[in-house]
Amino acid sequence: MRGAIIHGPRDVRFEERPEPKIVAPTDAVIRLSASCVCGSDLWPYRGIQAIAQPTPMGHEYCGIVEEVGSAVRTVKPGQFVIGSFFASDNTCPHCKAGYQTSCAHREPVAGAQAPMLRVPLADGTLVATREMPPTELIPSLLAASDVLGTGWFAAEAANVKAGKTVAVIGDGAVGLLAVLSAKQMGAERIIAMSRHETRQRLARELGATDIVTERGDEGVARIKELTKGIGADCALECVGTQQSMMQAIGATRPGGFVSYVGVPHGVELDGQDLFFRHVHLHGGPAPVRRFLPKLIELIWSRTIDPGKVFDLTLPLAQVAEGYRAMDERRAIKALLRP
Amino acid sequence: MRGAIIHGPRDVRFEERPEPKIVAPTDAVIRLSASCVCGSDLWPYRGIQAIAQPTPMGHEYCGIVEEVGSAVRTVKPGQFVIGSFFASDNTCPHCKAGYQTSCAHREPVAGAQAPMLRVPLADGTLVATREMPPTELIPSLLAASDVLGTGWFAAEAANVKAGKTVAVIGDGAVGLLAVLSAKQMGAERIIAMSRHETRQRLARELGATDIVTERGDEGVARIKELTKGIGADCALECVGTQQSMMQAIGATRPGGFVSYVGVPHGVELDGQDLFFRHVHLHGGPAPVRRFLPKLIELIWSRTIDPGKVFDLTLPLAQVAEGYRAMDERRAIKALLRP
Repeated sequence: MRGAIIHGPRDVRFEERPEPKIVAPTDAVIRLSASCVCGSDLWPYRGIQAIAQPTPMGHEYCGIVEEVGSAVRTVKPGQFVIGSFFASDNTCPHCKAGYQTSCAHREPVAGAQAPMLRVPLADGTLVATREMPPTELIPSLLAASDVLGTGWFAAEAANVKAGKTVAVIGDGAVGLLAVLSAKQMGAERIIAMSRHETRQRLARELGATDIVTERGDEGVARIKELTKGIGADCALECVGTQQSMMQAIGATRPGGFVSYVGVPHGVELDGQDLFFRHVHLHGGPAPVRRFLPKLIELIWSRTIDPGKVFDLTLPLAQVAEGYRAMDERRAIKALLRP
Repeated sequence: MRGAIIHGPRDVRFEERPEPKIVAPTDAVIRLSASCVCGSDLWPYRGIQAIAQPTPMGHEYCGIVEEVGSAVRTVKPGQFVIGSFFASDNTCPHCKAGYQTSCAHREPVAGAQAPMLRVPLADGTLVATREMPPTELIPSLLAASDVLGTGWFAAEAANVKAGKTVAVIGDGAVGLLAVLSAKQMGAERIIAMSRHETRQRLARELGATDIVTERGDEGVARIKELTKGIGADCALECVGTQQSMMQAIGATRPGGFVSYVGVPHGVELDGQDLFFRHVHLHGGPAPVRRFLPKLIELIWSRTIDPGKVFDLTLPLAQVAEGYRAMDERRAIKALLRP
């Protein structure tokens, strides 16, 4: 089969590689209904994260189970399934506490920008839908695999609740779906920080009540202005840079909550500064598995439509163009059809 | 009157200085029943925190109201009162949210190692007892002013609840009273990190179930060992150094809670490391005012006896010896009698 392999900065190739097989008895192999390019794929694409060797890309997926290992009990061939970017056993103490991305046996899932994918720990990782989904739900179900689950975790980790004022830093797919999540959780006011018109429009459509185009200290000042000098109750950092982190922390009221869900790159926090800011801080790789059953339900009932973040659909063979379009911010998120 | 003034590292003098007067109409002047030396007083004493000029010391206090400004409504001369190290109006949005140490009008209270003290924003800052306390309660009421309130905040901020496993880093007065606080909140297991025998004994008396003498990575490994490899649910960082902070973060399970209540000195957190540790982080200057009514009640009813942390009592004139004894760790905490 052919799939996406990154060879170096800005060098993603659609190349022949071996078809995945069952390796461990707890594995499943699935035939993908759709895959996509993630904002985090841009770190190695831009050369910010080094690549030691040619590496299969892609970690967002949904599709039909093709084969399972001998120990798999809850997932069967023919079922439509969605999983997360870290495989988890869903039985260890960390999983039971709802932190499946810190599972004692976690394994990365990699190589999803391809027609077929091996998923380790299938019982703990995959969630099957009740029946085969209609085609129009595929983009939203695919979004649940990572960007929606991550946006949802951003809102949860920042304690978003009814009546709260929420600032969302980052207008990528995760930030936009953090807006959607905050709206679902009953936030009264959702301030989206964005300077791109199409993204601002989508943010409003998903629930944003205010748009702030300023960045850095000016962005913080603007949020303070919008909140009578108090600051936001919750700030959701969906980028992973020093500037966005400081923007989130600076925009939050004392006693407020900051979440961060983008892998931090070069972020350093000064202990004393953080101390006097009095905020709560929580984040990490989103435990998407915790939220999957609920998110699938919300999608199935047409309560939410997170698939809206896909504004570019390409055949898998054009995966390199998906990277380019996202890198140049011509597209929010590229969906790949096998 | 004479009070403690720091002139430089290891140079605390008991010197003549003007008696405090009402400056603003919201002030109160109180005659102190007792004062003490704080662990945080040791930062400038040890030269780690620079002093620009000779500075009156002391910020923990309780005593009898001598005089109030014309705008003071809730506190009267003759009442016994306790306050916190930051004066707060207790009416601004930050105070109402329970973060009085981030009050929009906060002012530091300074110069309490003396017979008399000016307290700004008296209505918002001071809490009066229902009647004059018996002498034996004075040490505990004084502890409520800072170290108990700070230990209590450490436990609250780390989400200590019934059945939890709690690690306390730091065996100073705050750490010891964090043990007491965790016990009050129903923690099942309280692991105190201490290598000093007298402090270990007191920790056990206040509720510690386990003692860990190892530090750094070894201390973390020991806590993991004690918790079947999982880590503590809650870690209370009561020191303020890089080592103690990393110990707290390292000892905590993914999804667990780390609080930090000692002013961080030279603490830097790596964003990516923190991200993958998956912990909650919250801390800052303890909003003691939030807890004072409850803490006074617990002391009054003899439910808790936080005054036990005072293992040295000196006349105010010997304040310099109090600093020396604490610096050399001969004393946990020195109480000063005017």
